[in-house]
Formats: sequence, C-alpha cells, structure tokens
Amino acid sequence: MVSCPLFCYNRYMPKIVDHEKRKKQIAEATWTIIVKKGIEGATVRAIAAEAGVSLGSLRHYFSSQEELLLYAMDLVKERVSIRINRLLQSEDSPEQISIRILLELIPYDAESQTEMSVWFHFVMNSLPHAQEEEDGIREGIERIMTGLFEGRLLKKEVDVNLEIERLYALVDGLALHAMLHPKRLSKEKIKKVIVHHMNTLFHQPVEEANI
Amino acid sequence: MVSCPLFCYNRYMPKIVDHEKRKKQIAEATWTIIVKKGIEGATVRAIAAEAGVSLGSLRHYFSSQEELLLYAMDLVKERVSIRINRLLQSEDSPEQISIRILLELIPYDAESQTEMSVWFHFVMNSLPHAQEEEDGIREGIERIMTGLFEGRLLKKEVDVNLEIERLYALVDGLALHAMLHPKRLSKEKIKKVIVHHMNTLFHQPVEEANI
Repeated sequence: MVSCPLFCYNRYMPKIVDHEKRKKQIAEATWTIIVKKGIEGATVRAIAAEAGVSLGSLRHYFSSQEELLLYAMDLVKERVSIRINRLLQSEDSPEQISIRILLELIPYDAESQTEMSVWFHFVMNSLPHAQEEEDGIREGIERIMTGLFEGRLLKKEVDVNLEIERLYALVDGLALHAMLHPKRLSKEKIKKVIVHHMNTLFHQPVEEANI
Repeated sequence: MVSCPLFCYNRYMPKIVDHEKRKKQIAEATWTIIVKKGIEGATVRAIAAEAGVSLGSLRHYFSSQEELLLYAMDLVKERVSIRINRLLQSEDSPEQISIRILLELIPYDAESQTEMSVWFHFVMNSLPHAQEEEDGIREGIERIMTGLFEGRLLKKEVDVNLEIERLYALVDGLALHAMLHPKRLSKEKIKKVIVHHMNTLFHQPVEEANI
C-alpha cells in the first residue's frame, strides 16, 4: 500500500510550521541584534541569547552564521513581496497602485525601518566583495515603469530607461534619509515627494488625497 | 625686541606642515582600512600598520581612535569643499555651475568613491545614536536651490522646499548606487540623470554637452 501524500503532509505539517516559526523567530532576533550592535555584533552567541534559545538549538536550524544572515535577509524580501502582492489586488488605477508600491519600498514605520536598517547593514558590509549584486528593488521599479509605459500612462516624451535610474535613486535616497532622519522626513513628506515625482511623468496626474 | 610673527611663522611652518601631512597620511590609511575591512576593522593597530608608523607615533597624533575617525571624516568634508569652491570661481552660468556642484557630491572616480564609502560606513555605524546628525550635503543642496530660486532661474510653479527634499534624495541615492554598482552606473549616466532632473526645474534648460 502506498501511503497517501495528503496524509503525510498533514502528519508532518505541524512540525514544519513549528520549524519555520522558530527559524523566523531567530531571524527576528538577528535583526534586533544588528540594529542594536551592527552586523559585526551579530554573533551566533548574541543571536541565540536574544532569541532565548540555546547555541545547540540555533545550530540545529542554521548550520552557519552566514546561512542565518542570508535567511534573515530573504525574510525581509519576502515580507516586502507580501505587502506588494496585497497592493496589486486593489481595483484602483495603475497610477495609484504604482505610487503605493513605491511607498512600500520606503520605510516609514518601526517594522519597515528595522528591515531597511538591516538591509543597509547587509549591503554596506558585503562591500567590496558583492558590489555587483542587485537587491530586487531596481527590478521592481523597472517593472513598475515598464508597465506604466506599455499601458501608455506616461507622457510621450518620457525616456523610460533614464526615468528608471532616476526613480530608483530617488526611492533609495528617500529610504536612506527616512532611516537616518525619521523625525525630519515624515511619512507625509515622503508621500508628497513621490506623488509629485510620479505626477511629472504621468499623462494624467493623481491627487495626493487618493493615495 | 618683539620677535617678528612672520619669522615665527616661517620658522615653525615646516614642522606644522609636516605634522598636518603626517595626520593626513594616517587618515588616508584609515580610509583604506575601512574600505577593506569595514569600520569595525579600523583598529589603531591596523591603521598604524597600514600607514607604516608605530603605535606610539600614531598616538602622538591622535589620542583616541574616535579622534582619528572624526579627523578622517572631516578630511572628506574638507576635500569636497575645496573642489566646490574651485567650481564656484567659474564664469559659466549659475545653472551649469549648480549641476557641476551636484555632480561633485556623487562619487564617480576611485578617490571620491573611497571618500563616499568611508562616509557611508560612518553614517551607518553611528546608528542609532547619531541619527539626527546632518552631513552638510542637505545644506549644500538647500543653498543651491535657494540661490537658483532667488535668481529667478527656476520655473514659476516650482515648490522649492519639496524640490530640495527630492534633489537631496536623488543625489544621495545616486551616490549610494554609484558606490555599490560602479560598473552599471557610469559617470555619464549620473550626469545624464542630474542634467535631466535639473532641466525639468530650470526656466532655461542647459545642454548636457556644456557641463
């Protein structure tokens, strides 16, 4: 008799969920440590203490510090993706949705600021070895701009490639400043800058109040 | 007889010059170490070895690691200031000069990339303690935009405060990307983005070839 795949799945599911949950918990402890002490302070010992697990237990989930850091980084990407997919299901105009996605890439609350801070620590500390690695944000902006262009929603004179580069720099610059100067650069100010920037490109401008 | 100040000056000048020269040499070794190993690797021991001076000699010039790092940072600011002051003496139009100054703030050669890399390491590692400290670049951009506005060189509908924030983010975003992806983001591409951006604000656009 061949055992039922569904049965196997159901049988092992709780364990898998628990395993993933524990890995995420350790990843979150990693973020807390990086924000507090920088990436050089993110030793397995410090992370285990922060997560409230033993060193042996941590090594059961992650065989090396590098594996743990990469997992923590991928979790940031995953969370941003989930938020973006939720936005894509909206029935509002492509212009409105594109602005909302751009705002999702810029941290403005405690959660996304921690993510961004971890992100920058990773990017800065991978220097100079992984300089040429892209972070997915450029790809996202490329898709947004190409989609708007192909939908004929951008002004005729727009040079798409140039605008991708400009928007990518603007988004990462705002993200950097929001992280460094959260009091000066409020969520409202970021929104105002992005809406204004996109309105200089849109055929039909959107109202800031509708974002 | 009162001794001549000029004489004193001449007499002591070589020593002062030598002292400053040695301090700069140590600061440059600091940059090299930070770029190679990150700021956490910038120990006085490693810096002394890189500069080819003894630990005792280094301590003669800088009493603490912090003093040395701050000096290295100030030297970055000083070098950028010197380059900007040189640009301000040009007889070209304010539009051309403003674009050239903006380009000076974005690294595109080995020297300025090292400076920018050190800069980012400082900014990132001062987190979260010195989050509210400004870096002088925003102030410079504010001056440029205010000057252009007061000289009536910007389009009438321009919201200066919003444009300062947008330009500041664009410049720092390009600087970050130029540092992380020097092959993709060439000097020519940066120039094209900045000229295009400023031309959307100028009353009278400038030709890229004239920058």
